[in-house]
Amino acid sequence: MQRDRSKILADSIRRLLRRGAFSHLRKIVKKTHAADLSVVFQTLSPAHQQRLFELIENREQKGIILSELDRDTFLDLTEDLDLDELVKILETMANDDVTDLIGQLPAARSSAILEKMKKEHSAQVEGLLSYRDDTAGGIMVTDFIALRQDCTAREAIASLQKEYQDVEMPFYLYAVDENGHLVGVSSLRQLVLVPPETPLKAFMTTDVFSVQTDMDQEEVAKMVARYDILAVPVVDESHRLVGIVTVDDVIDIFRAEATEDILKMAGVGDEFIETKSISKSTRTRLPWLFASCLGGIVAFYVINHFESSLSRFAFLAAFIPVIMGMGGNIGTQSSTIVVRGLATGRLSVRDIRTVVFKELVIGGMLGVFYGLLIGGVAQVSYSRLSFALAVALAVLSSMSVAALVGSLVPMFFARLNIDPAVATGPIVTTAIDIISVFFYFQISTILLGI
Amino acid sequence: MQRDRSKILADSIRRLLRRGAFSHLRKIVKKTHAADLSVVFQTLSPAHQQRLFELIENREQKGIILSELDRDTFLDLTEDLDLDELVKILETMANDDVTDLIGQLPAARSSAILEKMKKEHSAQVEGLLSYRDDTAGGIMVTDFIALRQDCTAREAIASLQKEYQDVEMPFYLYAVDENGHLVGVSSLRQLVLVPPETPLKAFMTTDVFSVQTDMDQEEVAKMVARYDILAVPVVDESHRLVGIVTVDDVIDIFRAEATEDILKMAGVGDEFIETKSISKSTRTRLPWLFASCLGGIVAFYVINHFESSLSRFAFLAAFIPVIMGMGGNIGTQSSTIVVRGLATGRLSVRDIRTVVFKELVIGGMLGVFYGLLIGGVAQVSYSRLSFALAVALAVLSSMSVAALVGSLVPMFFARLNIDPAVATGPIVTTAIDIISVFFYFQISTILLGI
Repeated sequence: MQRDRSKILADSIRRLLRRGAFSHLRKIVKKTHAADLSVVFQTLSPAHQQRLFELIENREQKGIILSELDRDTFLDLTEDLDLDELVKILETMANDDVTDLIGQLPAARSSAILEKMKKEHSAQVEGLLSYRDDTAGGIMVTDFIALRQDCTAREAIASLQKEYQDVEMPFYLYAVDENGHLVGVSSLRQLVLVPPETPLKAFMTTDVFSVQTDMDQEEVAKMVARYDILAVPVVDESHRLVGIVTVDDVIDIFRAEATEDILKMAGVGDEFIETKSISKSTRTRLPWLFASCLGGIVAFYVINHFESSLSRFAFLAAFIPVIMGMGGNIGTQSSTIVVRGLATGRLSVRDIRTVVFKELVIGGMLGVFYGLLIGGVAQVSYSRLSFALAVALAVLSSMSVAALVGSLVPMFFARLNIDPAVATGPIVTTAIDIISVFFYFQISTILLGI
Repeated sequence: MQRDRSKILADSIRRLLRRGAFSHLRKIVKKTHAADLSVVFQTLSPAHQQRLFELIENREQKGIILSELDRDTFLDLTEDLDLDELVKILETMANDDVTDLIGQLPAARSSAILEKMKKEHSAQVEGLLSYRDDTAGGIMVTDFIALRQDCTAREAIASLQKEYQDVEMPFYLYAVDENGHLVGVSSLRQLVLVPPETPLKAFMTTDVFSVQTDMDQEEVAKMVARYDILAVPVVDESHRLVGIVTVDDVIDIFRAEATEDILKMAGVGDEFIETKSISKSTRTRLPWLFASCLGGIVAFYVINHFESSLSRFAFLAAFIPVIMGMGGNIGTQSSTIVVRGLATGRLSVRDIRTVVFKELVIGGMLGVFYGLLIGGVAQVSYSRLSFALAVALAVLSSMSVAALVGSLVPMFFARLNIDPAVATGPIVTTAIDIISVFFYFQISTILLGI
């Protein structure tokens, strides 16, 4: 149902854009939730995006659309946009989103924007810009409810009605001392349940989870997920409350990190590129194929090295694909399990020995099974036992080594604090290709007595 | 910091388990948040899990740990558990979690449990058991705040204090008519802000998002993420409010779906298997390698078919790895982009023609680049232009076809409503291997004039 609604909306927006039926389009845009509009927007061509964006009158809608775009689209779209208009759009947005966007702009343009923004807003944004993008500080919002611990429930409700009308996530009330240090937390629900004269400190929880501004965003996300909370307070080095990270941002982090890992493992960069232009996509993907190209050329030299075997027994060539394929596939299995296990916390770098040993045993067992099967095919085809044995042993060694390399490489990178996803894909496949081919020809050369 | 804390906790629990220092362990367990305990628990060996679980005295902690386990571990762990104890643990848990667990048990045991549970609780669980696991009905909780639309803010607060003390997610107040139909929504925050005598219908929003019980859980999750809401109400066919899906479950869905997609694409089933026993892991992975084995055997016959070319020009064999490797890698790039694009909604099945055409062009451009490069290596090595040309053309055709197959196959499966992640991995790589080898030998045979 949901998907159908999106589809219908996308279809009519496309149709109207093609026809140039702008007044009709303007009406549809007005009635549509910005979140829905944003989904459709991302599937449009750059020209249509430009056109549609100009047609939107409501600046809040524009803001939501901008906050969901990837870097390149955002830069293209806002390049020719009037500075005053851009500032007015940014002022409708939450300051963590504003910070993300401004951080992507060229320095000259971003400082021009900060100059034009209302002082209070720009000061907050400048504060946020000082944190790294992928830390708690970089993703937190600075509007939260902070109350003194001796304030009563009645006073708390009064301040909700006055100063905290616009807070995005008003479910937690944080208690701070005179220096702004976080000392406790309570909830809106508690506030409703206690008698009006109860002071906050009487019903707050003092055992409050918090994170430091420099904590990695993935760690923050895992913490929110683990404790099933709706927001986590962010404190600076001296434990002063400076912001909160809310659960909606946590969802975005998990989705983005999963996509990033998947794309990196396949060697297509860390951003979703299908919506980019052909030449841009090609340029992103080109370098990632170099590893496999180099590996293939090394494999070529390896095979060349065994030229005399090959020229006597040309049929050796026919089993190259299956031996490489079996190694490659089991290697991908092993490295995927390890990369994903590390990302979700099911595996830890500490387990390196257990995990690699286990993979090696599994690779060996699967290698025996498929070695017998593929060796059997060789025996049926050539009725030469020494060759069948060579094929079987090559499959076994290729699969064992592949499982070993596939699990060891990501563990090793993780231990060096290098992202295992980015390093694993091309390196593992390439290494396995070379090793498989080498083992195969070495074993055949010995067993065929060349 | 967070990671360190987990690590320290895990290390001390392991150490104490090995030493058998149970009374010390019991003390640590008592002081530890169940969510932290659960993380450590999942990294332990089955024997240690059994032992630690017995040491836990608090049934709520036990419940949280059980709710986070995968199917097999849960079944192993509870197999010998006393029925009364299991029922008492289940009664501390939210009914959506209870439903998940009971659904995994053998029929005899689950009905015995339902019999023993308190009537009200078991009736709710039985109701939930009738929905499919992966639908809104299967993941919703049935405790939510439903008020009549003419009730006043004061009355609403009074019922929060009485009947709705235990509601898990008390931030939305749903308004229903006399037949239980969902007619509006308001928030705890609104409730605090309005004068006490205001009736709910005066401050509720009537434009309320809801989902039907049979909506796929991934769609529900996307909806919660898109509109940045904390819970979405679930209604039956006649629009009666029957439950809510909360944001913490949405996070779990996204994480699980991402892991599932990644594991499926690598051909290692849809559950994280590294924590399982070696024989279990081996059995899960074995069948997935069949596709690649069969494909390799087909490639063997293809090469065999060109035996006469091979026996005259043995050096043909040396380029098999690089041609297969380049095709395989670009095919993985294409299929990964499409599978992830479909999963995140960046691509839709409607775009099949644009996407496949674009991939084909990218494959062609990258094919020209790497064809020239690898053809150059062939020319340098053998100084035979016709062969160098054959290698270059083989790389070009292999990479173009791979990009085509890599994007077309997942699109095609998605159109047939078959999960593109599960179908793509082995099929795409295997098809590309066979096609690459065939093109290479066909082109060489023609150009070398055999």
